[in-house]
This record gives sequence, structure tokens and C-alpha cells, in this order.
Amino acid sequence: MTYDYILLDFKSHIPLYQQLYLAVKSAIEEGHLAKGDKLPSIRKLSNDLNLSCTTVEAAYQQLCVEGYVAARPQRGYFVLAALKSGSERQKPLLAGLKSAAIAPIRYNFGSDCVDSENIDIKIWRRHIRDVLNRQDVIASYGTPQGEPELREALAAYSYGVRGVVAAPEQIVVGAGTQPLLSILCGLLNGMDQRVALEEPGFLQAEQIFSDYKMEVLRLPVDENGIQMDALRASGAKLVFVSPSNRVQTGASIPMSRRFELLEWARETGGILIEDDYNGELRYNARPIPAMQGMGRGENVVYLGSFSKLLLPSVRIGYMVLPPVLLERYRPRARRYNQTASKVEQLALSRYVTEGQLERHLRRLRKLYDAKSTALTEALKAAFGGTVSLTLQETLLSLILTVHTKGTEKTSAELCALAAQNGVRIMPTESTGAPKVMLGFAGIPPEDIEPAVHCLKDAWQLV
Amino acid sequence: MTYDYILLDFKSHIPLYQQLYLAVKSAIEEGHLAKGDKLPSIRKLSNDLNLSCTTVEAAYQQLCVEGYVAARPQRGYFVLAALKSGSERQKPLLAGLKSAAIAPIRYNFGSDCVDSENIDIKIWRRHIRDVLNRQDVIASYGTPQGEPELREALAAYSYGVRGVVAAPEQIVVGAGTQPLLSILCGLLNGMDQRVALEEPGFLQAEQIFSDYKMEVLRLPVDENGIQMDALRASGAKLVFVSPSNRVQTGASIPMSRRFELLEWARETGGILIEDDYNGELRYNARPIPAMQGMGRGENVVYLGSFSKLLLPSVRIGYMVLPPVLLERYRPRARRYNQTASKVEQLALSRYVTEGQLERHLRRLRKLYDAKSTALTEALKAAFGGTVSLTLQETLLSLILTVHTKGTEKTSAELCALAAQNGVRIMPTESTGAPKVMLGFAGIPPEDIEPAVHCLKDAWQLV
Repeated sequence: MTYDYILLDFKSHIPLYQQLYLAVKSAIEEGHLAKGDKLPSIRKLSNDLNLSCTTVEAAYQQLCVEGYVAARPQRGYFVLAALKSGSERQKPLLAGLKSAAIAPIRYNFGSDCVDSENIDIKIWRRHIRDVLNRQDVIASYGTPQGEPELREALAAYSYGVRGVVAAPEQIVVGAGTQPLLSILCGLLNGMDQRVALEEPGFLQAEQIFSDYKMEVLRLPVDENGIQMDALRASGAKLVFVSPSNRVQTGASIPMSRRFELLEWARETGGILIEDDYNGELRYNARPIPAMQGMGRGENVVYLGSFSKLLLPSVRIGYMVLPPVLLERYRPRARRYNQTASKVEQLALSRYVTEGQLERHLRRLRKLYDAKSTALTEALKAAFGGTVSLTLQETLLSLILTVHTKGTEKTSAELCALAAQNGVRIMPTESTGAPKVMLGFAGIPPEDIEPAVHCLKDAWQLV
Repeated sequence: MTYDYILLDFKSHIPLYQQLYLAVKSAIEEGHLAKGDKLPSIRKLSNDLNLSCTTVEAAYQQLCVEGYVAARPQRGYFVLAALKSGSERQKPLLAGLKSAAIAPIRYNFGSDCVDSENIDIKIWRRHIRDVLNRQDVIASYGTPQGEPELREALAAYSYGVRGVVAAPEQIVVGAGTQPLLSILCGLLNGMDQRVALEEPGFLQAEQIFSDYKMEVLRLPVDENGIQMDALRASGAKLVFVSPSNRVQTGASIPMSRRFELLEWARETGGILIEDDYNGELRYNARPIPAMQGMGRGENVVYLGSFSKLLLPSVRIGYMVLPPVLLERYRPRARRYNQTASKVEQLALSRYVTEGQLERHLRRLRKLYDAKSTALTEALKAAFGGTVSLTLQETLLSLILTVHTKGTEKTSAELCALAAQNGVRIMPTESTGAPKVMLGFAGIPPEDIEPAVHCLKDAWQLV
């Protein structure tokens, strides 16, 4: 530990050794130094604080005499007091903050992990290692807009897999969707500050919009997505959509509505924010290209990410700006520091250009196709007509609606019952029959059947 | 390349083979497919697009006939057209965007790099490798607030080196100062929206504040920092300060003014945002602990970072919230995804707890002490009384003021002259005699003297 927290007043009437003694004593009393901690050697501390060795020795001796520390021959000075870390003052603050204990999970249908068996981890490690060997790279800051070689790679990749029409200069890299939305909200200053989303909204994006004091409008939907009449009537100039996976249903917005939205944007000068989360992870339905490309890059801000494609721990996303916003971005580009790790950006760039991401994507499509089929069949076999199932393809999850008469349970209750039996599933808001969500990205294929049996035991619906 | 951008209309009157032919043809014409690119095999594409092999073959044959692609026996189909990448449509957009060519730099006094010789890169690589070996870690998302073990380590570290009084629960980790300020601005919603800074301001922070539609007030300063009368008169409830290095002068705010600021905060319920950028990098003046600790953690938001301590490419910063803002943060914590790389967070956590960061810090202090002395002496020897020097200690730079009568040059002109001679220095705004900034973090010690000679030749002041 460095002892810079020790504040000595060289003009004070209190002798320096005593000031030092008091500072260390209070650090021990407040728990910042714990039992067994080694104090710096007398020589080291006198050097650091610009004190004579005699002064430090005098302070240490007093601490020894009073029992706060003990000297061990040849080894140095050690703290004897046994207070826990964290000062008294902080304890009331912390008392309410401990997170609740979590029951042991046997089968995890959460949406926050991926099946670690199916990760190209060896290749990824190699790329990271290679980048770490480039001294020039790691000893300098990243490019604010994102590493040029990554933007180059993403321009080609996003066209290939999603039909996105983007020059590298239009691409802004960031540590996920939220930091990118933050930059976007800054660019939208001075424009209309209302943003429309489909009911029931999307919390992670709405949080950013409302932090930027924008007005969030949740508009009613029909079976194809946001109602065009409601959108026109709202007067909003900005729409946030997830055409590949609508938040509630997981269904994608059909071509007809996409064209209507693009036409609305062209007519009104509006901007569509297209969140294409996992848009490339199609394995069941035929892929529909991104709206950005359908609109030839005009009027659309495209958002792409990799957390489920690659590794959830890697925080890299990208945003493609249409010309109208690119003009606003250019003069400010250097004012926004890059948020994504430079090393990970360069590793990803290699991973993309060497074709490994696309190979991995093909593998994932097969894997998730097999898993979603296995889960659907296991659930049908276990519950029969008492449940109905909706695949949220790119969200890698199934929505399970429970139809039981008489003994109705809420979504939260169904999840709690499951949790008691070691099965982690997610509640979802809905009107009518209760729905729960089962994500299958993280569960190994061989666990699917036993997990469903566990769920059946937990619920005992029949 | 994946061919998902190909949009086929199965209900159209245009035969499928012709739709496919047109899609590939336009991809070639628009330059998305370049000369020499290999098309997917017939079997692969028919699989991917759910078409018969005959359909794909018919499309490929037509492309061959028209000279867009060529079939090579045993190898497949290759693009013949030689258009450059990037469609025609995008070219006008890009024309104005190319960055200006940069003259070759022999001696770099920029502030955006560190001397790569002095990085603990071996130890850092080992930690990264260890973390990448933990499957459970990389296959799951990070904790929104920051990895618990890192926050634990930072609580101890920031107390040791800076006297910051923080429980791990008060610490929020993010990919640098800007994403942390973004979260902070969200928390400040509903409170007074004016934020005061010292003249001449600090662009990186002001950009975020104004993006959040806050009113930025640049207040006049006296020799100790922001004028307390001006602050009181402004009515602002929020002050952004860099007590360890004032932006303009690099001087630190003296104890007396720090206490005045803390008292102001206590009296008015105001909040001080303490940007402690490189606060631990003291090697000349005696270190003054952070205001956060002096105020016992109340009324102060503390911001710490590692870019110059560790590696500029690593984007990890942290923010310590006072109780009043922690209360607001808790219910929202899960709505903000973590921006900093999980792998780098865990590597940093090890680096801190194993004491390597503090050891490295000691080494850096000695190194920068030596470098700043060498640079000061070389400049004095070369320019004598025609210049005066101010050390910006934690910014790792010297401000050089040029006093020449008659042939006065602007700061920008001085930098341009230096650049023509291969020396990169930075202009700084000032009234009166022109000032330039020489950062010494990135220049190897042995280059200091020749660099100063080059600068002397470039300027020819005497």
C-alpha cells in the first residue's frame, strides 16, 4: 500500500512523528488497515513522505507501545488490530445494499450467458495475444471513432451478413449500444426531442433517451409493428425499432411495414434507429436484410453488436450514421473518447477479416436451430396443450404461455416455483395468460430434457 | 462472405434464378464484391438461401456469360469485375472526409502516448491470459456496476494512494470518464442543471454536459482556482474541478481552497465532481490527498482513471458516488450496461491486489521525475531567458512560454515550425506571450536532448 493518504502539516505545532502516528492509528481504527497488513519499512516510508528515519521510527514505536502494530524481527511491522475493512461510518450505508442470496441454479434459461462449449475461444485468445504483442498499439490511445481496421472490416461484414451499406467513415464503434446511443443523442440536440418506440418499450434504450431529457413515446402496435397512423399522429421525427426482433413477441417486422417506415422517414425527414441486435442469428426464418440497406443508407441509424455472436464479455458495438448525422458527427468526433477496448477491437478486426466470425456464425445457426427444436419438443412432450410456444429467434429464447383454468399463477410465481426446483427462467409482462421466457443460449443441449422435467415437477400443472 | 443481403421474393413473377443473378450483379457493380472475390459454392448458396442447386447454377451461368464472374475448374466461381470497394453513391460523401496527411514525426511531445519501454507489459499479458482461461467469466456478461472483485480492489487502492474513502458498493466502473459522466448526468436529472467549471473549461467534460442539455458556466479564477464569490453568485449547485491538475496551469488547487469548496458544498447542498486524472502521479510536489477523502466522502463525486498509469489502450475508469447519489443510482444500476471490458477489469483487479500497480507507480514517479528534470534542463540550456517553464506535473507536460519581442509568433505558428522539423508539440490557448505544451510521457529519455536541439533549430529565436 502507498501511504499518500497521510497528510502531514509541516508548519504545524504537532510534531511530525505524532502526526504520522495519528494518521496510521486512525487508518487502523477505521479499518482501512486490517489485521496482518504489513506497514512499509521505515526507510521506504521516510523516503516516500520526505521524513527522517528517526521520525518514522518514533511513530512506529508509539504504535507498537499502544498495541496497534507489532514488530517482527527481520520482517517488519504488522497491524495487530482486527477491525474489519470499511469504516464504521460506512456501515449503515452498506447494510441495506447487500444483494440477496441466490439459490443454486441447476438449469439456467437466463438470457445473460452463452453456452461456453460453443465459443471459438482458442482463436480469440490467439488474436488477443497477437495484439498484446504490438507495443505501439497498446502504448497509445485508440482512435475516437473506432480503430480504422475494425471499421473497414465491419463495413464489409455488415454488408455481407445484413446488407448494410456503409463506408468505414460512417461507422462509429463503442462499448455496446448504450454508449453509442449517448453519442447519437448528443448529435440529435437541436432537433425534435421526441422518440417513438413500440409498446411495451425497451428499457435499456429508454433509459438513455430519458437521461438526455428526450420525450419517450410508446406507440400502439398492430400485428406488423408500430401503427403507422399513430406514428404520423404523434409528430415524432425519431423512431427506435428492432425489426429483427420486436421486444415483446420476438417476431420480426415484415417487409411491407419496413417499406412503410422507410417511406415515412423519406417523406417527413424522420430518422429510424434500427437496433439490429443479433440480426445475423437467423436459423429458422429466412433472413430479412437490414432496413438500413433497403433504404440505401438514408434516414437510418443502424446499430449492430456482437455480445451473443462472440463472447458476452466483449463489449463492442457499432453504429452506422446516415449522411445527415455524419455531418454533425465529424466536427465532434474527437471530443468523444473511444469506449471499447482497443485490444479487443483489433482482435475482432482480425477475427472478422480472417472469416472466422462468419464461420462461427454458421456454426451457431446450426447449434441454435438444434437447441430450439429440442427445447420446443421437450416442452410439448411435457406440457402438451396446457402451454403454447413462441420462438423469439434472434433473442435465442422461447416464450411459454401457460393456459390453466382455475389455478392461475402469475408469471413471477411461475418463475419462483421453477427457481425453487433449480430452474432459472424469466418472467415477462403480459396481459391475459401468464408468460415466461426460456433462453436457450446458455444451456448445454444435453441438459434441455432434464431441465424441462424439473420444470414440470416444479409447476405440477396437470 | 455470407450472402444474406440477397433478398429474394418467392412470390414475384421474376424467376428466382434471375433475382439471384440481379442481386449478385448489382453487388459487383456497386463494388461490394471486388475482383478476385470467391462466390460461395453452388451447394452452399442453395443451402443458405433455400433454393435448388439448379436455380443457383442458372444464375451463376448467366453471370459467367456476361463476364461478371469466371468459373475456375476445381476451385469455384470468382469475380472478374475490377471496381474498387465502396459504391459509387458513397464516393462524394467520402471525398471530403479523408484526414490530412501527417508529416513524419521524429520527436513526439504529444500527450496521447506513453513511453512503451516503461510498461509492465509482461505482467499485464499474463493477467489477461489467466482471465481468458476462465470460461465462466468470458461466457457471461459483466456486472453492470463493474466486477465486484475490481471494485473491492479499487476501494483499497484509492484509499492507499489518494485517501479516497469508498466502500465497493459506492464505486461504479466504466470505460473512462465520459461514460461515467453520462451515468452521472442521468442521476442528476431533476436537480439543478447548471454546472460550473474553471475558466478556460475542459472540453471532454463540457461536451457531455451540454449533450445532456446542462448549462455550462465557465467561472473566473484567482491564483487558487475557481473564485468562491463567483461560484456563490452563479447559484450553480454543481462544480467540476480537477484539484490535482488545473487544466490551464497544471497547478493543483491548494488546501485552503479545497476546504472552501467542501464548505460551500456542505452549506449549499452542492456537489463537487472531482476529476482526479493522474492524481497519483506525483513526483515533484508533495501529494495532496483527494478532496473526496477530506470531505469524508460527502458531497463529492470522485473520478479516477488508469490510462497513463497502466496502458493508454486500456479504457477503465471509476467513479465514487456520495450517499445522496448512490441512493439514486441503486434502482437504476441494472439499466446501464457495463462499458469497460470484463476481461480487462479482472486483469486490472489482479494487477492491483497483487501490488503490481503500486510498484509500477513508484517506478513511474522516478521515471517522470528524471524525464521532467532532463527536459527542463535541456530547454533552459537551449533557450535561456527567452522562455519560461511551468511544470504540469500530473499532466506529464511542461508549458513553455516564449518571450520574444518584435518577431512574435502565435502558439500555432510555433507548433507548425516545430512540426516542419519533425518535432510534435501542442499549442495552448493563452493571452499574452504564446505558450506551447511539451508532453514527456511518450518520449524516450535519450531523445530529450536531440529533440530540444531540433526545436531550437526550428524556431531560431535568438
